[in-house]
Amino acid sequence: MIALTPYIGLVAGFLTSAAAIPQVIKTYRTKHARDLSMWQLVMLDVGMLLWLIYGWQIGDRPLIWANTFSIACYTGLIAMKLSYARRGRD
Amino acid sequence: MIALTPYIGLVAGFLTSAAAIPQVIKTYRTKHARDLSMWQLVMLDVGMLLWLIYGWQIGDRPLIWANTFSIACYTGLIAMKLSYARRGRD
Repeated sequence: MIALTPYIGLVAGFLTSAAAIPQVIKTYRTKHARDLSMWQLVMLDVGMLLWLIYGWQIGDRPLIWANTFSIACYTGLIAMKLSYARRGRD
Repeated sequence: MIALTPYIGLVAGFLTSAAAIPQVIKTYRTKHARDLSMWQLVMLDVGMLLWLIYGWQIGDRPLIWANTFSIACYTGLIAMKLSYARRGRD
């Protein structure tokens, strides 16, 4: 079981990072972000920026890449939510 | 700067875990989860279950506790989304 451990971590990291993709696609397609909490998006974005700094400090590449990707996704969701709200869609 | 690194990791972990709280509160209050992607919720839930197994394998308590908390939040969101959809609210 221990031999499998690094792979479990890899799949876990892949899933939690890639999870933002279907949300970005759905929000872009429906042009609605009413039910998304802005607090959640901002906390995730700031938290992942700190993970990125942490990964950079300890020189951990997977942490750097995964968080750069997630920050792009969540920043995009924040931008879409603000934009739809301004247009009175949400 | 390096002396700050563990604290940056701690705050990062706190923020990314706690980010689910405002989403759970918002979804419970509004009784709407239309704009939440079910794929995102399921991928996060499975990914965090794997992080939990990973944390248990390497004996990392913060990883175990943070992911147990997040799994509870995201499972709650999935349950709410299914329940609101069934009642025809979404």
